[in-house]
Amino acid sequence: MKDQMEQDQADAEVQARIQASFDRQGLMGHLGARLTHIGPGRVSISLPARPEVTQQNGYFHAGATSAIADTAGGYAAFTLFPEGTSVLTVEYKINLLAPAEGERIEAEGTVLRPGRTLTVCRLEVFAVRDDRRKLVAAGQQTLICVEGRPDQ
Amino acid sequence: MKDQMEQDQADAEVQARIQASFDRQGLMGHLGARLTHIGPGRVSISLPARPEVTQQNGYFHAGATSAIADTAGGYAAFTLFPEGTSVLTVEYKINLLAPAEGERIEAEGTVLRPGRTLTVCRLEVFAVRDDRRKLVAAGQQTLICVEGRPDQ
Amino acid sequence: MKDQMEQDQADAEVQARIQASFDRQGLMGHLGARLTHIGPGRVSISLPARPEVTQQNGYFHAGATSAIADTAGGYAAFTLFPEGTSVLTVEYKINLLAPAEGERIEAEGTVLRPGRTLTVCRLEVFAVRDDRRKLVAAGQQTLICVEGRPDQ
Amino acid sequence: MKDQMEQDQADAEVQARIQASFDRQGLMGHLGARLTHIGPGRVSISLPARPEVTQQNGYFHAGATSAIADTAGGYAAFTLFPEGTSVLTVEYKINLLAPAEGERIEAEGTVLRPGRTLTVCRLEVFAVRDDRRKLVAAGQQTLICVEGRPDQ
Repeated sequence: MKDQMEQDQADAEVQARIQASFDRQGLMGHLGARLTHIGPGRVSISLPARPEVTQQNGYFHAGATSAIADTAGGYAAFTLFPEGTSVLTVEYKINLLAPAEGERIEAEGTVLRPGRTLTVCRLEVFAVRDDRRKLVAAGQQTLICVEGRPDQ
Repeated sequence: MKDQMEQDQADAEVQARIQASFDRQGLMGHLGARLTHIGPGRVSISLPARPEVTQQNGYFHAGATSAIADTAGGYAAFTLFPEGTSVLTVEYKINLLAPAEGERIEAEGTVLRPGRTLTVCRLEVFAVRDDRRKLVAAGQQTLICVEGRPDQ
Repeated sequence: MKDQMEQDQADAEVQARIQASFDRQGLMGHLGARLTHIGPGRVSISLPARPEVTQQNGYFHAGATSAIADTAGGYAAFTLFPEGTSVLTVEYKINLLAPAEGERIEAEGTVLRPGRTLTVCRLEVFAVRDDRRKLVAAGQQTLICVEGRPDQ
Repeated sequence: MKDQMEQDQADAEVQARIQASFDRQGLMGHLGARLTHIGPGRVSISLPARPEVTQQNGYFHAGATSAIADTAGGYAAFTLFPEGTSVLTVEYKINLLAPAEGERIEAEGTVLRPGRTLTVCRLEVFAVRDDRRKLVAAGQQTLICVEGRPDQ
């Protein structure tokens, strides 16, 4: 799986564009999240456990879980968009399947159906402890491709 | 509206219990969010604009918007739960209706249908600038009441 | 409420266009549903109880509940669309809040946020017995306005 | 795939229980839907094209698509429930990905995360024409296991 993912990289220009956009997201830096994979139609984001991302019982807060899931899905869609466009989340739905605890959580956004205007992604978040991954959240997201680069 | 909300407070014990739980949420403190209203079946949370909560274009990140919406809905449900129970988010769905920009965003969670096991909330997030409020996100959330207080 | 709704009619051309489209929906006729109100940004559909629309316990089937909710929301959005366009449901989410039983169910679709491309609606379904209405389902829906009239 | 599915049958008692419940659903019979596979945690339902299940442009109505998706997910969860319990849909979210046209549509409900109280399913609907299957809808559903058999 890992081998396949390593091979399956988006081209360098797309990776650079997404990394630059990610680095401008104040929230991702503030949470401590980082991009771990950028493939065509598939992006992963990792968030280490820290007191700053917890809910009241010490687990990862659903807001943190959702934030990296939403961001992973957004960039997964963005890998398939033409140059000179931007991505916006229209909506998403997420089920919190189990308490999110471990050393880190990893979100994966995967394009389920690309489109010229709308793209639909599947969202998954895994909690990782001692190299064991457990699915802790799953969702589905709708994104829109807009002309222009509001971000520059 | 404000007057009615001020009158419409949850009883002191419930308010104290929710404030204490909120204060244990590392994420809420880290984002800079605070509880602004705790009424029976209705809770509001406010988040001031800061670079730490932005997405790549400088707007509030959907993850921040969702985090306070989810938390407001969770505590709105919790105001109606019996003593000795906890609240967990089962799932939620949120539409990002417009770019979230302004001095702050305010999330309101409102119980739509209370239940012994499951409670459903309506979620709304407003962006506020110069005392004008604009709806920037709307959603719906399912919560579960669980026995025991995992948080203590 | 009823009085306000009666006053609050969409203009005659829009009503005629929606009624004609509804009449072409094989499913609505097959279920026995009918349009009961067409206002600007708000449409209601009623479905009488019959064995043909039940689930295994004799209640209205969630599929029937959802079908009229989705249709009501779609036409609610359509009332605000320009001439020469069509409406498609992008997605919706619905909570089944209580068993749907009674003489009929009534779905109301209400535009929450109109847009040039995307429109978001709130969906509500009530079960009616002896003139008492009970909320049995609530949801949220995203619709897209497409050029052309694929339906003619 | 087909071979694996044929092997992967739920035990006879479970299949009989689900078929009997399905047969009591007035809506499924009225639409013309039938159960095509009952495996552990996975159920498929097929619906042939007929004028009675269309929307205004002659495609399958989103309400019909959703109805069989919701039902497939419900029974998929039910295959894993203990005897003497019933299944209720708490909520679902569905994206309509493409116009649903063809000889029939096929819904598959697959348990993503089983639970004692709540179960989460993935929903997929394919349109079939000349043995080619195209994904036309995808969703996610939450179900609850309730004591007793309200259906008998």
